Amino acid sequence: MSWQKLDDLGHNLDAIEHALAILNADEATNMPAGGGEQRASAVATLAAMRHAQATAPQIADWILKAEDEVDGLDQQHALAEFKRSYLNDTCLPSHFVRRQTEATIRCEQLWRELRPSGDWKAFAPALEGVVALVREEAQLRADALDLEPYDALMDQFDPGNRVADIAPIFDDLKTFLKSFLPEALAAQEQRFANRPLIEFAGPYATENQKSLGLAVMKAIGFDFNHGRLDISHHPFCGGVPTDVRMTTRYSTDEFLSSLMGILHETGHALYEQGLPSNWSHWPLGKARGMGAHESQSLFVEMQLARSPEFWEWALPLVKEHIGAEKLNKWEGKDFLARANYIERGLIRVDADEVTYPLHVILRFELEQELVSGALKIADLPEAWDAKMTEYLGLSTIDDPANGPMQDVHWPAGAFGYFPSYTLGAMMAAQQWAALEKAQPNLRSNISNGEFEAVNQWRHDNIWSQASHWSTPELLTRATGEPLNPDYFKTHMKQRYLG
Amino acid sequence: MSWQKLDDLGHNLDAIEHALAILNADEATNMPAGGGEQRASAVATLAAMRHAQATAPQIADWILKAEDEVDGLDQQHALAEFKRSYLNDTCLPSHFVRRQTEATIRCEQLWRELRPSGDWKAFAPALEGVVALVREEAQLRADALDLEPYDALMDQFDPGNRVADIAPIFDDLKTFLKSFLPEALAAQEQRFANRPLIEFAGPYATENQKSLGLAVMKAIGFDFNHGRLDISHHPFCGGVPTDVRMTTRYSTDEFLSSLMGILHETGHALYEQGLPSNWSHWPLGKARGMGAHESQSLFVEMQLARSPEFWEWALPLVKEHIGAEKLNKWEGKDFLARANYIERGLIRVDADEVTYPLHVILRFELEQELVSGALKIADLPEAWDAKMTEYLGLSTIDDPANGPMQDVHWPAGAFGYFPSYTLGAMMAAQQWAALEKAQPNLRSNISNGEFEAVNQWRHDNIWSQASHWSTPELLTRATGEPLNPDYFKTHMKQRYLG
Repeated sequence: MSWQKLDDLGHNLDAIEHALAILNADEATNMPAGGGEQRASAVATLAAMRHAQATAPQIADWILKAEDEVDGLDQQHALAEFKRSYLNDTCLPSHFVRRQTEATIRCEQLWRELRPSGDWKAFAPALEGVVALVREEAQLRADALDLEPYDALMDQFDPGNRVADIAPIFDDLKTFLKSFLPEALAAQEQRFANRPLIEFAGPYATENQKSLGLAVMKAIGFDFNHGRLDISHHPFCGGVPTDVRMTTRYSTDEFLSSLMGILHETGHALYEQGLPSNWSHWPLGKARGMGAHESQSLFVEMQLARSPEFWEWALPLVKEHIGAEKLNKWEGKDFLARANYIERGLIRVDADEVTYPLHVILRFELEQELVSGALKIADLPEAWDAKMTEYLGLSTIDDPANGPMQDVHWPAGAFGYFPSYTLGAMMAAQQWAALEKAQPNLRSNISNGEFEAVNQWRHDNIWSQASHWSTPELLTRATGEPLNPDYFKTHMKQRYLG
Repeated sequence: MSWQKLDDLGHNLDAIEHALAILNADEATNMPAGGGEQRASAVATLAAMRHAQATAPQIADWILKAEDEVDGLDQQHALAEFKRSYLNDTCLPSHFVRRQTEATIRCEQLWRELRPSGDWKAFAPALEGVVALVREEAQLRADALDLEPYDALMDQFDPGNRVADIAPIFDDLKTFLKSFLPEALAAQEQRFANRPLIEFAGPYATENQKSLGLAVMKAIGFDFNHGRLDISHHPFCGGVPTDVRMTTRYSTDEFLSSLMGILHETGHALYEQGLPSNWSHWPLGKARGMGAHESQSLFVEMQLARSPEFWEWALPLVKEHIGAEKLNKWEGKDFLARANYIERGLIRVDADEVTYPLHVILRFELEQELVSGALKIADLPEAWDAKMTEYLGLSTIDDPANGPMQDVHWPAGAFGYFPSYTLGAMMAAQQWAALEKAQPNLRSNISNGEFEAVNQWRHDNIWSQASHWSTPELLTRATGEPLNPDYFKTHMKQRYLG
C-alpha cells in the first residue's frame, strides 16, 4: 500500500526531526563549547539524511497511488499536505541547493563579521549574490507551484499568503500607523506626566525570576509533563510537541523582559503542546506556519499579557515571587506602562507593538522589489533610508549596520519571511476580538487568573486544526472572516489612546 | 572508491549514534516524563535506521574492494575493524533478530514485574525462551566468526576474549578468593577493633557534594570543555567523546557513594575523551570493548581512588567542599576504611572489590552451561544456590529474587557480558602494576594531586590505541604480558591484609 509507505516515511522523517529538535535545544542549553564542531557535523549529516529521504523520487509515485487509497477528509488533507511538503522539498534541483547553501553560509559569515563596523561596501557583493540566487529560487518555486515568484517564497512559511491580499492590508495599516504613532506618543507623554515611570531597583535574583516564570507558565496552561524551561542566550521555543523545550534569559537589573519573553515563548509552546497527536508524524499534524505560530505567541504576549486584566491577576504573583518589599511602589499599571512603552527606533527586534509593523512593512516592500529585480542592491541603502525617514522619521543613510545590514534574514536567503511577524500580530488581534465576542466574560476571567476557556477556544479553533487549512483559511474558520486590519487598529487605539 | 563509500557510511552511522547518545543522556537527565513515549519511538526508529544502513548488502562488496585500496597500517586496522563490525551486525538474519527482540522485551518486562516477588515459576518459561534463542544466536555467530559458540557471544563485548584463556584464570582467582575472603574479613575486624568506623552525620548538602565532585573530576583530568556532570537515577557515562555526558546521584545522608560513583564514571569519561579524533567515525576510533572500558573506570575507582595516597591528597579537598566542621573526626584512613569495607552479600551490584569477582565467576560458569545446554533452566535455582553457598557461604534457594532473578542481563539476552566486569578489574590491577614499574614516583605524585603522568601513560597505552588491537593484545602491549591474575591477587593482599 502506497499510503503505508508514506506513513512509514513519515515515521522516519519525524524521528530525525525529533533528534534534530532535541539536539538543537541541547546545544543551546547544555552542550559544552568543545562539543560544537562534532555536533555541527552530526546535525548537518542528519539534516542531509532527512532531506535525502524526504525527496526520494519514488515518493512522487507513492503520492499518486495513495490518492486512490484515501479514505475520508482527514486522509485527504493529510495527503494534500504531504504533496505540498514534497513539492516544496523537491522543486529546487540539488545542484542549485548546493550553490545556494554555499552562498548563504558565506554571506551570513560575512554579515556577522562586517555588521559591527557596518561595512556595506564589503558586504554588498555577497548580498547581491544571495539575492540573485533568491530570484532564481523564486522562479523555480513559482513554476512548480504555479504562483507568482514572491508568493511562492511566502508560501513556504505560511501557505496561502498572497501579495494581492496582503499588500492592500499592509498599505492600510501603514497609513494608519504613520498618523497613529505621533498621537500614541503624545498620549504616552501625557500619561507619564500624570504618573511617571518607576525605575527598577534591582538586583532581582535569577531564582526568583525563574520561579515567577514557572508559576506564570503553569497558570496559563503550559504542561510541564510535556516540556520544560531552561536558559539560553537567545530565547526560543523548540523541542517536539510531547517535549517542548522553552528557554529564557535573565538579567538581574530588571525582570520584566524575561517575564514577557517567557510569555511570548509560552504562546508558541501552547500551540505545539495543543497539536493533535494522531497525525504527529505527518506534515498535516504540524503547526500551520510562521505567521500562524507568531499569532499564538503574540496572542499571549501582546493581547493577553499586556492587558490591564492580566496585571490585575499577575501583580500579587509577581510580588510573591520577586519580593513585595522590593516592589512596594509598583501597581499593575506601572508594569503595564513599562511593558507597553513605545518609541521610535532603528532596530526591528527592539521595536514595540506600534512601530514593529512599520519595520516589517518596510522590509516586505523592499524585498518584493529585490526579488522582482526592480531594486538593485547598490540602491538599497538609499531606499531603506527613504522608507525609514518616511515611516519612522529616522535616517539610516550613514548607518547601514542599523539599516539594510540589520537582520540575518536576507544574508541567510530567507525572503518572504518578514510579513509573518505582522500578519501574526494582526491575526492575534482578530482572534482576541472573536474570542471576546464568543466569551463576554473573557476579561473578568483573566483578572481572576482563569485561562481554561481562553485555551479551550484556541485549542478548538487553532491548535487542533494543525495543518488542515491554509493560513488564511485557518483564520477565517476561527474568526468568521478573512484577515481584517481593523481589529489590530482598534486594539492599538484602545491600548495607546484609551 | 570503495574506501570513500565506507568513510561516508561511517559519517552517517556516527551522526545517528551521536544523536542516540545525546538523546539517551537527555532522556535520563532532562526529559519530562510525558515525552517518554514519543522519545522511545523516535529512538527505536533511529536505531532501526542505523541498523539498516550498517547492514546494507553492498557494504560487503565495498569492504572487499577497499582491501585493494588500503594504504598503511592504520587503514588496514580500520578496514579490519569495519569488517568485524559488519560481520557482527549482519551474521544474524533479520527474522531471527525480530524474534529475539520480541522475546527479550517480553522477558525483561516480565522480570521487572516478577522480580520484587521473586516468582521464579512464572518467570522461568520466559527465560527459557530467551536462552533457547541465545543458543541459536551463539551458533549463528560461531558459524560466521569461526569461533566456539560462547566465545562468539563474548567477542561482541571484548574481541579476542576466549574461554580457553579466561576459564583457567578465573579458576585460579576463585580458588584464591575462597580462602582469601575469610582472611580479609578477619583482618578487617581487627582493624575495626583498633579504630572503629566513623558514622556519617549528615545532612550533607547536594551543592557541596556536587562542587566536590566537580573539583575531583577536574583534578584527575576530566575536560569540561568536552563534557559535563548531571544528575540521573542510574549513574552513567554517555554522550560522545567530544561531549561526554556523565551523571551521578546524591544522597544527603552521606557523600562517599556519590564521590566514588563520580570517580568510577570519570574513569570511563577519560577513556572516551582520550580517544583519537582522526578515526572517530570509524569502528577503529571507538573504545575497545566492555572489559577494556571497565578497566579504565576501575583503574580510577579501585586502583587510584581507594589508595591511601589518593586520600592524602583528597582529604583537604573533601573538608573544603563538605565543610571541615562536619568532618573533624575524619582522617584519610577513615574514608578508606569505609570505601574499602568488605562483606559477604547476595547482590552483585552492591558487592565490594573482593567478593565481586565471585559473583561474576558464578555467572560466567552458569551461563556457559546454559549456552551449551548442559544446564536446564529448571535446574538453575539449585545450581545458583550451590555455587553461592560454595563461594560466599550464602544460600539463595528460597530467595530466587536475589538468586537467578537478580540481574537484567539474562532476561535482556546479554550472555557473555558478565566476565567483562572482572576482566576489567584484573586488567586495571595489571595496568597499575605496569604503571608503577614505569613511574616509580607514582604514589608520591598521587599524594601531591599530580595526575598528569598517570594519564599520559594511560593515554599512550590505552586511550590512543582505540580499537587497533583485540582486548588481550591491548593489555599485552600496554603491560608487557598477557592477563595475569597475580597482579590482582597481590593488590588484594596489599589492600586487605597489608
